[in-house]
Amino acid sequence: MKPYTEMSREELSNELAALKKEYKHFQSLELHLDMSRGKPSQDQLNLSMAMMDVLDSNSDLTCEDGTDCRNYGQLTGIDEARVLLGDMMENNPNDIIIYGNSSLNVMYDTVSRCYTHGVLGSTPWCKLEKVRFLCPVPGYDRHFAITEYFGAEMIPVPMTPTGPDMSMIEKLVQEDESIKGIWCVPKYSNPQGYSYSDETVRRFARLKPAAKDFRIFWDNAYGMHHLYDDHQDYLIEILAECKRAGNPDLVYKFASTSKITFPGSGIAALATSPNNMEDIKRQLRHQTIGHDKVNQLRHVRFFGDIHGMVEHMRKHADIIRPKFEIVEETLEKNLGELKIGSWTKPLGGYFISFDSLPGCAKAIVARAKKAGVIMTAAGATWPYGKDPNDSNIRIAPTYPSMPELTSAVQLFSLCVRLVSAEKLLNEMKAEQA
Amino acid sequence: MKPYTEMSREELSNELAALKKEYKHFQSLELHLDMSRGKPSQDQLNLSMAMMDVLDSNSDLTCEDGTDCRNYGQLTGIDEARVLLGDMMENNPNDIIIYGNSSLNVMYDTVSRCYTHGVLGSTPWCKLEKVRFLCPVPGYDRHFAITEYFGAEMIPVPMTPTGPDMSMIEKLVQEDESIKGIWCVPKYSNPQGYSYSDETVRRFARLKPAAKDFRIFWDNAYGMHHLYDDHQDYLIEILAECKRAGNPDLVYKFASTSKITFPGSGIAALATSPNNMEDIKRQLRHQTIGHDKVNQLRHVRFFGDIHGMVEHMRKHADIIRPKFEIVEETLEKNLGELKIGSWTKPLGGYFISFDSLPGCAKAIVARAKKAGVIMTAAGATWPYGKDPNDSNIRIAPTYPSMPELTSAVQLFSLCVRLVSAEKLLNEMKAEQA
Repeated sequence: MKPYTEMSREELSNELAALKKEYKHFQSLELHLDMSRGKPSQDQLNLSMAMMDVLDSNSDLTCEDGTDCRNYGQLTGIDEARVLLGDMMENNPNDIIIYGNSSLNVMYDTVSRCYTHGVLGSTPWCKLEKVRFLCPVPGYDRHFAITEYFGAEMIPVPMTPTGPDMSMIEKLVQEDESIKGIWCVPKYSNPQGYSYSDETVRRFARLKPAAKDFRIFWDNAYGMHHLYDDHQDYLIEILAECKRAGNPDLVYKFASTSKITFPGSGIAALATSPNNMEDIKRQLRHQTIGHDKVNQLRHVRFFGDIHGMVEHMRKHADIIRPKFEIVEETLEKNLGELKIGSWTKPLGGYFISFDSLPGCAKAIVARAKKAGVIMTAAGATWPYGKDPNDSNIRIAPTYPSMPELTSAVQLFSLCVRLVSAEKLLNEMKAEQA
Repeated sequence: MKPYTEMSREELSNELAALKKEYKHFQSLELHLDMSRGKPSQDQLNLSMAMMDVLDSNSDLTCEDGTDCRNYGQLTGIDEARVLLGDMMENNPNDIIIYGNSSLNVMYDTVSRCYTHGVLGSTPWCKLEKVRFLCPVPGYDRHFAITEYFGAEMIPVPMTPTGPDMSMIEKLVQEDESIKGIWCVPKYSNPQGYSYSDETVRRFARLKPAAKDFRIFWDNAYGMHHLYDDHQDYLIEILAECKRAGNPDLVYKFASTSKITFPGSGIAALATSPNNMEDIKRQLRHQTIGHDKVNQLRHVRFFGDIHGMVEHMRKHADIIRPKFEIVEETLEKNLGELKIGSWTKPLGGYFISFDSLPGCAKAIVARAKKAGVIMTAAGATWPYGKDPNDSNIRIAPTYPSMPELTSAVQLFSLCVRLVSAEKLLNEMKAEQA
């Protein structure tokens, strides 16, 4: 089929009529499918059921250092968990704090602490006239929600396949002392699945922010989440690079096992420099006596070591790789020649990012919803939920089953065609009027 | 033996010499005992080991409402856990949010939220010139540490066996709009083990604070922690009483299973009015997608229902009751007639509160430490760690074994006698000089 943009008004009208018929057919199927969030599927969750067996009433719940995991203590986590998550995050165990069940919670608490108590003795952000955050776009809605909730002004920075626009970032942070942070998902980014290039990471580590309390919020959510054995993205480790660049305190790095074991019942961690670590501990000791050590021990004993975790992640990959592939194939088959949309083809992570013709995303998502397929809200990938082009849509292929996903992407493609054809026809009409 | 205060200088000198000899003997034993914190003993932890068996790889981790506990979701906790902790806290499950592993964390987060975002639309506390908190004394050091960390000015309010001085509280909150909160441990208080009388609770519910954003931080940490089957304290349920008094939004109520199952691996909860609940949820949804539901389910299936929890608490009581009794007996035997100290005799909770002669507490704790017994730091029960009388010492009898505890309390009694005798002798010398 030829591109919609090259079709005559009549051709497009005929196409639209056929699409509407097809859409009615989909509506008659009464689908109830959810592609809105990056949730593991039941098959993936089943991979970790054996973790429920590693501790039982006969287990010795004592750590290597003699700590009884059943009692109070260990503010920064048990040593074994710091070693395992250190290997996972490619950081020194001493630079790691193990937290509770969610890295989102750690990120929220980190921003909150900056607001109430500042960074390494700086003025608390709540006492400042203005706090600004840089937000690579498209990005992760829950990141933006945190900074919006705290009243930070969010400045979008365009993403590219090698990471955010570094020239823009370098200029902004150097000029504007009110810029206090930037949200990054450096590997298999949310939603595009891009990984930051070596040059990008090097330039991040060499930022010269006007604000001494500027921090990079480095959410390495998908560090382990490759789709392929042989074709993987590697990232320069940011803390080490910052240290080499003479900027050791620039980064807060976050990760969790949410999409490794059970979302909401995993363990989360923060890695940062010794200075930042001491700063955080001054706060943390008032917030808790320690996080859930039994669950830390459960994770350590389940995986054994980082190799065990890597092997476990291959099983996840085996389940979700076909899902990414079916989405990409279906989009290619249905939209490939039409020039009404483009999408990313990540090597890992949880999302595919789709860009429609400008001004179509909201309508596409609404159409999909009316036929029973829930997508991430259009605009969600931008600060304040406002995509100025109304074109970006995040596709989350992991949760539905393969048959469900196939139907959902077929419907999605149909909605893209339908809305795009309508748009182009309306433009033709407007031109002729 | 006659009271020290009635001894002659010679009698006291002889006594002191004998005590010093005895102290040396204790030093030669090279004790390493810890009575500093309210930690369950290993025997108590063993009571919950069967909880490690209730979930295994064959378990269905689905809630009654169909929620898969292994995946994201359920911001306020699973229904079953809200029912169980509702029964535990004597609140409607709908008024309960289940949190993570620690009520301290919930209290910290609650204070933090008030600082960054205010209460039901009030000015965030961080924007105010002055925030004051009322602190019944002696009280819980970790409460005071939170408000100190946020820069609140803490005003001590004397405790009595029926609760804090309500006349003082009523007057202060009515007069001073900068008073935003009060820390309460209403049942088996930390450290005295006092429970608030009906009148105290009634008056709390009828406070008329000048500040609309004043809240009672009601830490019901020991609601289930009775020592005796037949002799227990009952408390008027504060949320219900506030509702009856037309003050429904006055209270944040906290509890956890830390001293029921495993400290640090239990579940915590907050109970409050529907208005406060909505206010909190507006924040909570930015902080987390949900707390650890697998652990919530584990707790629910372990206890079955509130009766199961009550039976479980009887086993705790059987272990710790003899410890409270040996402390009380030993103190009575060694100090009963000497008029150099008094102590509480709680029916529940985790602590016994000891009051020495004024100006002796720090010295007593230091002496005990030099002979190998760690007590809670003197002063810790007061805001800023400053006990103006230097007399209050918190005794935490649960963690040591019975033989250890016996040695520790004997040594403690000896230190009380030694420091008191020294003090009285010094006073005599000063008078004669």
